[in-house]
Formats: sequence, structure tokens, C-alpha cells
Amino acid sequence: MRKLESRSFRFDGDKIWILDQKLLPQEKQWIDVTDPAAMVLAIQKLQVRGAPLIGVAAAVCLARQVEKGLPEKDFRKTAELLREARPTAVNLMVAIDRLLQFADRKFNMRQIVEATERIFSEDVELCEKIARNGEELVADGDGILTHCNTGGLATAGVGTAIGIIQRAQQNGKKIHVYVDETRPLLQGGRLTAWEMKELNIPHTLICDNMAAIMMREGRVQKVIVGCDRIALNGDFANKVGTYGLAILAHYHKIPFYVAGPYTTIDPNCQSGAEIPIEERKPEEVRGVSGAFGEALWAPVECPVRNPAFDVTPADLVSAWILDKQVLYPEDIKSGGLLACMPL
Amino acid sequence: MRKLESRSFRFDGDKIWILDQKLLPQEKQWIDVTDPAAMVLAIQKLQVRGAPLIGVAAAVCLARQVEKGLPEKDFRKTAELLREARPTAVNLMVAIDRLLQFADRKFNMRQIVEATERIFSEDVELCEKIARNGEELVADGDGILTHCNTGGLATAGVGTAIGIIQRAQQNGKKIHVYVDETRPLLQGGRLTAWEMKELNIPHTLICDNMAAIMMREGRVQKVIVGCDRIALNGDFANKVGTYGLAILAHYHKIPFYVAGPYTTIDPNCQSGAEIPIEERKPEEVRGVSGAFGEALWAPVECPVRNPAFDVTPADLVSAWILDKQVLYPEDIKSGGLLACMPL
Repeated sequence: MRKLESRSFRFDGDKIWILDQKLLPQEKQWIDVTDPAAMVLAIQKLQVRGAPLIGVAAAVCLARQVEKGLPEKDFRKTAELLREARPTAVNLMVAIDRLLQFADRKFNMRQIVEATERIFSEDVELCEKIARNGEELVADGDGILTHCNTGGLATAGVGTAIGIIQRAQQNGKKIHVYVDETRPLLQGGRLTAWEMKELNIPHTLICDNMAAIMMREGRVQKVIVGCDRIALNGDFANKVGTYGLAILAHYHKIPFYVAGPYTTIDPNCQSGAEIPIEERKPEEVRGVSGAFGEALWAPVECPVRNPAFDVTPADLVSAWILDKQVLYPEDIKSGGLLACMPL
Repeated sequence: MRKLESRSFRFDGDKIWILDQKLLPQEKQWIDVTDPAAMVLAIQKLQVRGAPLIGVAAAVCLARQVEKGLPEKDFRKTAELLREARPTAVNLMVAIDRLLQFADRKFNMRQIVEATERIFSEDVELCEKIARNGEELVADGDGILTHCNTGGLATAGVGTAIGIIQRAQQNGKKIHVYVDETRPLLQGGRLTAWEMKELNIPHTLICDNMAAIMMREGRVQKVIVGCDRIALNGDFANKVGTYGLAILAHYHKIPFYVAGPYTTIDPNCQSGAEIPIEERKPEEVRGVSGAFGEALWAPVECPVRNPAFDVTPADLVSAWILDKQVLYPEDIKSGGLLACMPL
């Protein structure tokens, strides 16, 4: 397999490395996730994260095993192990399924490696296309509110929502980004705030519960978020808090956009009700933990809910920004999402 | 002045003590705030907090100074110092203004002390009445979502929103409370979660951005919050995040109630637009800090907005639960809030 490199992912020709996103931005530590068990753990712990990137990373991990002589009889088992690391983002299943077509009689190392290289380079291209399509929706002077982290750390390319924002600024549009901190794992407060600074994009960090007052004050002209799975009716899963933001945007009559590559569309999912939502450990809500330190403020045994995602219904979405094109509600109703998938 | 005691406030006949709410629930430390400068600092640092309680505490502090011989010529200056400690909650201004009527020619130590003792005991009674009035709106089996902390720590009595919840449970209604953690200062995750446990009320702690999915799942039948200032048109200020919750409740057709004593009504404030909103230090948003430890996850110089409160417009409120009675939107329109104030 050829060498592969993105902002937080690297295949050096021998080993697979990820930039540990649990430790960012305080520590920049690359960890070896060549072994499938290590990759699964890294995905579960969000050391590697972002719906598109976990698909790419898992595929590279599987292909590397094949290259290193994984017997044909173990291929499916290893693939399933990786495929099941996290339940909500469909990109992981899509990427592994693309390699699973080589299971059984079609098992061919060269073809598996080539397919994986395509998965990687395709994700880079998909990001570019999303950025180009979405950029057209951004106006000079816009305040844009975003949630979680959807840039170069979350994909093999420039990202989805952040890719759009970055492209808009590159095209000379003056943008101000409102960064939701995104409890409990603080992907906004840690990662997006840091990336905005690195990219020199003017920004303001807020707690998630301040989004409404920012909208009320007239500071937000667009909300743009990424996604982890899009159902055929346009409902989509994304980081918990997205659904609430969509309601707030609707109330304030602010356009609400979701951005993602076609690999995020689940053709087997008719509506959001079918998307499984990962429930994570209560400790994440009782406090915080990372390279920045650890703090537990809630009573130790405090009962907690911790859904990692929520589902935003299609009727709250102004447009779906895909690599192929921007879809509007009427497009969704006429099967536009399926038409955005490759034949 | 007679001895005074509530859950987090104490006058022992000599000194004034508060239970440091920045350290709860990890540490229970009473601190001496007899000196007005110490009281101002404790109010600003949220060591003593809750709109009703800061009014009571500041009044007791002022009266104690008078008792200890504060010269008449310094009375107004000390009163103003206390009155300006925080800008949003009007109870502070109301309580101090009640003592300021004794400024100048009416200066009388005995009367100031008696008025202060009445402010304290009245707050206890107001809480009881709010609890009784609000309890009638709660149904057996309700899931109730609340924000920030509005119980025995925040008032001289049983609290406002939490007082209602507690009374409903005492009256045999089965209640489940969803506790918003309430970033940035975590009054929900630290204080309300702890109080629910102490009061044996079944509860679930969530991050603020999970309120929408809890509503979507049908777990929330009522939202009840406290308030820091109510304008005559029914708009009210409360802990940041309240406005967003009101929109979410509206979208999900869930009743949204605000509870507070008449001392929270500002008769000089026609609408929410006139309520000053305190903007606090950026450090609070860049991380967390308390007896539980300290953690800074955002870039050190990251630009931040940190409004401590937001304003919820009256048209999102189902009812205002006051000590005198429950007001509905039609009551508000016919001047009901003014009619809830003593003559």
C-alpha cells in the first residue's frame, strides 16, 4: 500500500499512526494503531474520530493486515471486528463493506489494497467537492455557528463543515465562527477552537447552552454541521446537541445546513428512527478528562444519560451539502439522496 | 439581630457565614462574609448564589454593619457597594432598597434590623407559597427538566423550582428530574445533582445539549426553572441556557414554567430588553475550576463569550409560578405581575 497522510492519520509504508485526538490540543502524540485490536480501541476511545476518518482508518487497517498476510479465512472476522467498533457513523460500515466484497472467492490482496487507496484519496476529493458546493451558500460577513469538529482532523481531507468555512474564507469572504464547546467530550472547545486558530479564522468559543442567545443577538447567519449517518428521508445523526441547534435555528429563521460525503448516506436506512445511537460511559458526563487534566464534579454514582448522537429530522434542515451537489427539501422528497450515491 | 439559618447561610448572632457554593459538593466549607467587601466578593465569585439568597445575604450584611455601629453617613455607600455586586438578579437591588428607605433622616438601627429579619423570614415563606402553588401543576409520573440550581442552596427557604419538585414528591407524586449540568459553572452537575440525591428524588444528569433528545424521547413532561429578574411584560432573565430550553419546550409542546418570588419582579422594567446581562470571565468557558480540581482545555487566549444569563420572552412561557398565585399569559397581559407585588 502506498504511503498515506492526512492531518491526523498516517500510513508510513509499514505502520499506521493516528494523532491521538483525546490529547489534542495540549499534546501531539502519534500512536501506532496498525493492529486491528488497537484500531478498534482507538476508535472507541475517540483517539481517532470523525465519521469519514474512522471509515478510512479502519479500511487502511484491514488492508494492511491483508498485505501482511492475514489468511483469507480470517479476513471476514477482522473486518467485522473493525466494522463494529462504533455503531452510529455509517462511513465505517460503508468503508469496510467495500473491502468485504473481496471476501471468500474474490479474495485478492492487490485489489484490496487498491480499493483502500481509493477510499483514502476519494475522501480527500469528497471533502474538496463539499467545500466547493457549500462555499456558495456562505455570504460575506456571515456569522457561522458550528458544533463538534468537522475539519482536517475528522476526515482525510479538509473536512466537511469546517472545509466549507475554510474555503469561504480563502475565497475572500469575511467569516466569524461561533464554536460550540460540544460537551461532554469537548470536540469544539478543544479541537475546533484550536483549528480555527491554526487556520486564522476569527472565532468565538461558547458553551453549548449559549447558542440560543448568540442567535437572538443576531450574530449567527448560518448553522453548518457535519453528520454521521443520513437516512434516505433526509433525517441525519450527528453529535449530540445538533438536534437542539436545528430547533433553535428554525425558531430564529436561520438556515441550517448539514454537510457530508455520500459515504455518510445509508441507503438501508429509510428514516432517522432506524439509526442506532451509541450510549457512552456515564463518567464522561460526570466530569472531564484529557491531556488537560481530569475533573469529576458530579456525585460519583450520579445517574446519567450519555447519548453520543442525536437525530435531526429532515424538516429542520434547509439544505444537505453533499459532494455531488446541494440538495434542498424538494430534492430529498424526490429521492435526491439515492441519486447522490455512485451507481 | 436574631440568629438566622438556612441551608447555605447563617448568622450566628455575631458573624455571617455562607457555605461556599464554589466548593460544593466536594467540600463543605463555611466562610465568614460579615465584612461587606467579603460579601461583595463572595457574591461575585458565586460562593453565595441564587437570586433570592443574594438579596437576603446582602441585606443581613448591611444590617449587621448598622448594628455594629456603621455611621449614618456611610450607610448609603455600603448599601450601594452591596447593591452593585452583580447586575442581573433584581432581588439584590430590591432587598437593599428596602433598607435604603432608612437612609438619611429615617436612619434607625432597630428598624433596619427588624426589616432585615423580615426579609429573611419572608423569603422562607415565599418559597413555601411558590412550592404550594407550583405543586398543583405537577402530575404524578412527570419527568421534569430543570436548569441551574434553585433549591435550598439558592434561597433562604426550600427554593423555587426545586421547592416545587420537592413538594410534589412529598405529596406522593412520582417524579423524575432531568438535571441540566449548566455550563460553565456547573450548578446543575454539582449542586442540583447533589441536592436531588440528598432529597432522594430520582434524577438523571445530562449535558445541556442533551435536553432536546430527552424531550424527543418523551421523557420530559414539564420544564421548570427559576429566575433572576421578571419584567412586567413577563420576559425574564435566568441562567444562560434557559432561553434555549424554552424554545425546545415550545417546539416539543411541553409546558414551560418559571418560578420565583415577587421580589424577582422588577416594576421598573417594562420588557426583557431592559435587563442588564452580566458577562463573566472567559476562563470560565475555557475550562472548569472548583474544589473538584481545575482543567483548561481550550487554547489559552481563545476568544470567548460568557453571558451568565439570557432572557426568555414571555411568549415562550406557559405560566409564571409566583408566591401569590400562578399567572397565565392572559394574566400577564392584564397587568398580573404588578398585582402580585405587595402594596
